[in-house]
Amino acid sequence: MSQKFRKSPLAPKSFPDLPYIKGIKLSAIHSGIRYRDKLDLSLITMTEKTNVACVVTKSSTPSAPVLWCKKIRNIGKARALIVNSGNANAHTGKKGLKAVKDTVAHIAKNLDCKSNEVYVCSTGVIGEFLNSDKITSSIPKLIKQKESSWKEVAESICTTDTFIKGSKKNCRIDGKNYKIVGIAKGSGMIFPNMGTMLAFIFTDFPIPKRILNLLLKEAVEKSFNSITVDGDTSTSDTCLLFSLNSSPLNKSIKSINEDRIELFRKSLDQVLQDLAKQIVCDGEGASKFITINVKSAKTYKIAKEIALSVANSSLVKTAIAGEDPNWGRIIMAIGKLGSSVIQDKISISINKVKITYNGALVNNYKEEDVVKKMKSKNIEIDISVATGKECATVWTCDLTKEYIKINADYRS
Amino acid sequence: MSQKFRKSPLAPKSFPDLPYIKGIKLSAIHSGIRYRDKLDLSLITMTEKTNVACVVTKSSTPSAPVLWCKKIRNIGKARALIVNSGNANAHTGKKGLKAVKDTVAHIAKNLDCKSNEVYVCSTGVIGEFLNSDKITSSIPKLIKQKESSWKEVAESICTTDTFIKGSKKNCRIDGKNYKIVGIAKGSGMIFPNMGTMLAFIFTDFPIPKRILNLLLKEAVEKSFNSITVDGDTSTSDTCLLFSLNSSPLNKSIKSINEDRIELFRKSLDQVLQDLAKQIVCDGEGASKFITINVKSAKTYKIAKEIALSVANSSLVKTAIAGEDPNWGRIIMAIGKLGSSVIQDKISISINKVKITYNGALVNNYKEEDVVKKMKSKNIEIDISVATGKECATVWTCDLTKEYIKINADYRS
Repeated sequence: MSQKFRKSPLAPKSFPDLPYIKGIKLSAIHSGIRYRDKLDLSLITMTEKTNVACVVTKSSTPSAPVLWCKKIRNIGKARALIVNSGNANAHTGKKGLKAVKDTVAHIAKNLDCKSNEVYVCSTGVIGEFLNSDKITSSIPKLIKQKESSWKEVAESICTTDTFIKGSKKNCRIDGKNYKIVGIAKGSGMIFPNMGTMLAFIFTDFPIPKRILNLLLKEAVEKSFNSITVDGDTSTSDTCLLFSLNSSPLNKSIKSINEDRIELFRKSLDQVLQDLAKQIVCDGEGASKFITINVKSAKTYKIAKEIALSVANSSLVKTAIAGEDPNWGRIIMAIGKLGSSVIQDKISISINKVKITYNGALVNNYKEEDVVKKMKSKNIEIDISVATGKECATVWTCDLTKEYIKINADYRS
Repeated sequence: MSQKFRKSPLAPKSFPDLPYIKGIKLSAIHSGIRYRDKLDLSLITMTEKTNVACVVTKSSTPSAPVLWCKKIRNIGKARALIVNSGNANAHTGKKGLKAVKDTVAHIAKNLDCKSNEVYVCSTGVIGEFLNSDKITSSIPKLIKQKESSWKEVAESICTTDTFIKGSKKNCRIDGKNYKIVGIAKGSGMIFPNMGTMLAFIFTDFPIPKRILNLLLKEAVEKSFNSITVDGDTSTSDTCLLFSLNSSPLNKSIKSINEDRIELFRKSLDQVLQDLAKQIVCDGEGASKFITINVKSAKTYKIAKEIALSVANSSLVKTAIAGEDPNWGRIIMAIGKLGSSVIQDKISISINKVKITYNGALVNNYKEEDVVKKMKSKNIEIDISVATGKECATVWTCDLTKEYIKINADYRS
């Protein structure tokens, strides 16, 4: 976690008290990859028969760890996850891939598991070679040392983050309590394609890998793929969902349409959305949390495109930073898509104050009403395009001088 | 021209000395639409038989004047251009269109021309109703008063601009000297789709309207459509190219393939590129002028997409503002397109210093060499993707705290 910048004013009050999940061992240390005093390397080991689903960045310049995760994810089994911060091992060519393979081989040997059960994530500076000796030489220590806390692991994956991100949810299925625990990191280079960050979710609810995959993809679409900070897409984004088999069901899950999955899905969506919103709250320089709801669009895709276009507009984001109800910039951002929008049908509200209706300013519009509402830390923009029935929501933050300071003066 | 902000450090030393073009009358006044002391309304009248080509924004929420220009442009004849600054007359519904039609009717009556020969452009705040009385009541004065200078007209179209933009070029065709004169405005909301600004180009070289159209489209693609400041697309962008028939040719132009058109095209491209670069130099908060050359791509479209992706990345632009050779962000911006790039073939140089070659850092890379070069006001990024033979160039500026100041604290 960055010590250089003030804690985001949108940070939650405290890190949640995350419960132990049977079958998992957490281990975090300081290995000295880049940072001086911060935990920077974590190993999470898991019991046998753990299923995993994996979604990674769509970037065509992915990091070496992303290439590795993509290679093994179809097998869908996991025994270990190793994560370092400070160096992304991205755009490092063959040497970068070798660093991943060395790390994996060491862990597989020490844990007596297959190498395709070892997941690797790296986050930090792009393009610098990662000295994997620092990691491999730490592995015995990581395996032997006493258990770390979720908070320590969550801290170890942070880079420019100004607070540590975690979330949890219980769900009662077949008369038993199951847990979902998630941790994440992310602050800049945040744009869906996929989530543009690291997020690891663990549950003791046992789910077959095929269903786990579908659940994760759907949950990511409406959480990490619905946030943006700066429209930039990381080379390292990885979201992993681990389902441990430590609390087996009497009757195992067979189909995604089961009621039991519905119960689980609800809790899973909540954890992912909570983490996604925390990432937005830690958006570099953020002073406002912005929700953009687009409704009455022809398709979900159009609704989401419009929401993202508004969310990614520097002019909209700076106007909100300045508490200026310059709604013309919202119109501009909708229009810039050049898509199937009919100008005369667009309606816009900010924090429930109606501004435009059917393509022009509402009668008796009082700018001071919106100015007042915009003093809030939470800004909600409602856009109706009145061409259909679909809707989408995207979360983002404002664009402030602090963003420039962080990104012009500092290398993460 | 904005008095609120310091003149861009990238501004040219002075406004060029633009020549008189026979058949044109310039007239600029202060009408008081929004600004207190600035020229804000210009009428340019032109001799009969003037041909015009017109390219406008692709925004689906275009302004009322843009809708009007689109409606009349196929006729291709012009007698007058009226431009106001301070109010964009955008997203103003039927009242906005009525304001345009009233203005046009007044001018057509006063000049005794057809209404479809009167072009209208408005630039400024979006969404506020434009009181056209201020314009129509000024028309007799605009017609009667003594001729204004190019500089005065160029000033009258400015909004947040910190300097006035003009360019000229002569070309010798058929033993005669012909002139091209252009003026433009633009500073924020600059993203190709088309040029995202106003630009008016005038020539006494007589060109048939069909050929004029083709010439303008091609010239805009490699000038105003190759610049970006903030990735935001205005609702008002309009580029007009007027060809006066005041110095007729002995043998008129018949085909776009004539050598005479080739001579003219070269000069036209130079004027448009000069104006486009001036807009970038006045990019809100700009401290560096950035050229992004992408070469060896499979198609021009891919090359341009890559160049724009780099040019629009907030992380790249802030790194350049901080003179930080954080080239990993360039890799990220290339990768975020998710297009047909092969990571292992990418090479990057900044101001001629080779940084990466074939997908990884070059041997003996010395960061301090690039740091030194990045102190320059001009930053040139060369990217080779080694998948073909096509290339594209895009111009942009860096992203500074000044951009946030301008856009968070001030309504243009």
